[in-house]
Amino acid sequence: MPLVRENILQMAGYVPGEQPGDSSVIKLNTNENPYPPSPRVLEAVQRITAEQLRRYPSPDARTFREAAAQVHGISPDMILCTNGGDELLALVFRACVGDGDHVAFLEPSYSLYPVLAAMQDAEKVILPYRINGTHWEFPPEIFKLAAKLLLIVNPNAPSGTLAELPTLDRIIASFPGVVLLDEAYVDFAPASALPLVREHGNVILLRSMSKGYGLAGMRFGYGIAQPSLLAQLHKVRDSYPCDALAIAAATAAITDQAYAAGTWEKIKHQRAHVSAALRSMGFTLPDSYSNFVLAQVPAPVNAGELYQRLKAANILVRYFNLPGLTDKLRITVGTAEQNTALLTALKTLTTAA
Amino acid sequence: MPLVRENILQMAGYVPGEQPGDSSVIKLNTNENPYPPSPRVLEAVQRITAEQLRRYPSPDARTFREAAAQVHGISPDMILCTNGGDELLALVFRACVGDGDHVAFLEPSYSLYPVLAAMQDAEKVILPYRINGTHWEFPPEIFKLAAKLLLIVNPNAPSGTLAELPTLDRIIASFPGVVLLDEAYVDFAPASALPLVREHGNVILLRSMSKGYGLAGMRFGYGIAQPSLLAQLHKVRDSYPCDALAIAAATAAITDQAYAAGTWEKIKHQRAHVSAALRSMGFTLPDSYSNFVLAQVPAPVNAGELYQRLKAANILVRYFNLPGLTDKLRITVGTAEQNTALLTALKTLTTAA
Repeated sequence: MPLVRENILQMAGYVPGEQPGDSSVIKLNTNENPYPPSPRVLEAVQRITAEQLRRYPSPDARTFREAAAQVHGISPDMILCTNGGDELLALVFRACVGDGDHVAFLEPSYSLYPVLAAMQDAEKVILPYRINGTHWEFPPEIFKLAAKLLLIVNPNAPSGTLAELPTLDRIIASFPGVVLLDEAYVDFAPASALPLVREHGNVILLRSMSKGYGLAGMRFGYGIAQPSLLAQLHKVRDSYPCDALAIAAATAAITDQAYAAGTWEKIKHQRAHVSAALRSMGFTLPDSYSNFVLAQVPAPVNAGELYQRLKAANILVRYFNLPGLTDKLRITVGTAEQNTALLTALKTLTTAA
Repeated sequence: MPLVRENILQMAGYVPGEQPGDSSVIKLNTNENPYPPSPRVLEAVQRITAEQLRRYPSPDARTFREAAAQVHGISPDMILCTNGGDELLALVFRACVGDGDHVAFLEPSYSLYPVLAAMQDAEKVILPYRINGTHWEFPPEIFKLAAKLLLIVNPNAPSGTLAELPTLDRIIASFPGVVLLDEAYVDFAPASALPLVREHGNVILLRSMSKGYGLAGMRFGYGIAQPSLLAQLHKVRDSYPCDALAIAAATAAITDQAYAAGTWEKIKHQRAHVSAALRSMGFTLPDSYSNFVLAQVPAPVNAGELYQRLKAANILVRYFNLPGLTDKLRITVGTAEQNTALLTALKTLTTAA
């Protein structure tokens, strides 16, 4: 008898982007914020006492939920905190999707979704994006789905494209199960789907402190949904998903909105610059509403080779060997200096190739 | 259509012990170490840089695994780190137990196990402890089980009793699935089952930094098993289960063995003192090999009422309204001062009642 379930034995795990130990690498592969978190975060970390380390933390990250509720203009009981946004995804899969149930998601999108579906031994309903030049559109079947769970990243990863609220509203209204709107990158976009949570009991927003608030090292995410849906998710969560230091750091970060918004403006400015420069070099890319761009490499350059050559030049970007992505690179928008180094290297490498 | 699975809808979530905000409470209800973590932990926390917060942490907590491997005399690839020991339990359930599969555990034991079984829609095989006075023994059917997963807490919670290695060896050798030995409290016991991991490919030890190392606030646990079994668990784990600060804190804590062992000695000394004092007041309790005692309240005192009265006196202990436990209190061994306060209060309350 195998020691694990057949579906686990058959599946491959998710492979995250590389996290090199070498800090001299120009790291544009996993969409971290290129700017450090608010100085208030380090102050909060320094204030931690031995007594806070010794005792169990707040089971529901109360201080963070109160701070975030104020920022979003909602009640704290509409917020559920998790050990990174990925843990929220795992909770939603566990609560909503059983053996043989259907789970729907777009492709290309977050490549963790099929892995989570395989863990639950669920049936995947793959919705291919309609890609017309640099225009990414939902396929029409998204408005008449039968499934337990539908996942939409908005702005999407890895394309950076954005769906409009009225479209999302129609999808949520017509869908019989839970819709998870993954807003990990929403801080770099013009609008959130937050208003839809008030109207629909079957939607949950995913938020992350990793990108917008420069806290990828702390693992802190949260969900926003109506309390009746969160009550079910509470049953499948860990007793203490967030540790005392993560709660303190995330609370300090979300409270300093002015600092975070300053980093978003700088990133959006650099995004426009990098996008224009890439286009002038022959790359094709949709307008990005995120902190990365998905750039199609100009023929005859091979995207996989270009990734390797950038890596040899100490610049890490992301290459996905997945349907629809093999001719593209996903590049995180870095600081002005990092972006200049990237663009200089690309100019040399694409001309040489 | 309900938004969540039928088994989730039907189940109740796990209810952890209270975590009062008021720091004047004498907190003997969730088995924290009464002593702060090693001073090296706070030093490590203070040394954290903004850059470490900004970047994703090590996906596999490499520095901790190397330090723990040295302490245990094993190879780092036999260690898997998780966001608290509870996350390891969730991983093992997800990997080993599907819809309708059988999962076996003792009763009374850790009351999270039936909750995790319900999440997986699994069939519970409940093994009642044979309790003879203060002697707790495994039922004979434990040696001839058919199930996918068997969970044994050793030393057991909430009894504090200990099973011997030859007994565990026989159980593991005869069991067809995975045996999880939950050693969350092993630092207060004379021996670990670590030698059994070398001999058996179907066993995984659970370790926690919460109790022995005074780091309940940080959420850090780990599993020890042969690499072939861990390879399967890696598929169902989060990409970055442990944050940068938790890795730094846990590494500092496990490296300072002399400090941790000093707290274990003090706790064992106090455990003997508290046990003797409780017995002299008419409580009945098995010898504990853990950092708590399970005390049967002398008739005609009602355990639930005594719990409430202690709470009114600002002392929190744990009362479980569960089969076999309604006449007992589980009391964490505290500092000498805390234990004196507890014993003084109990003397008054049991005499008054």
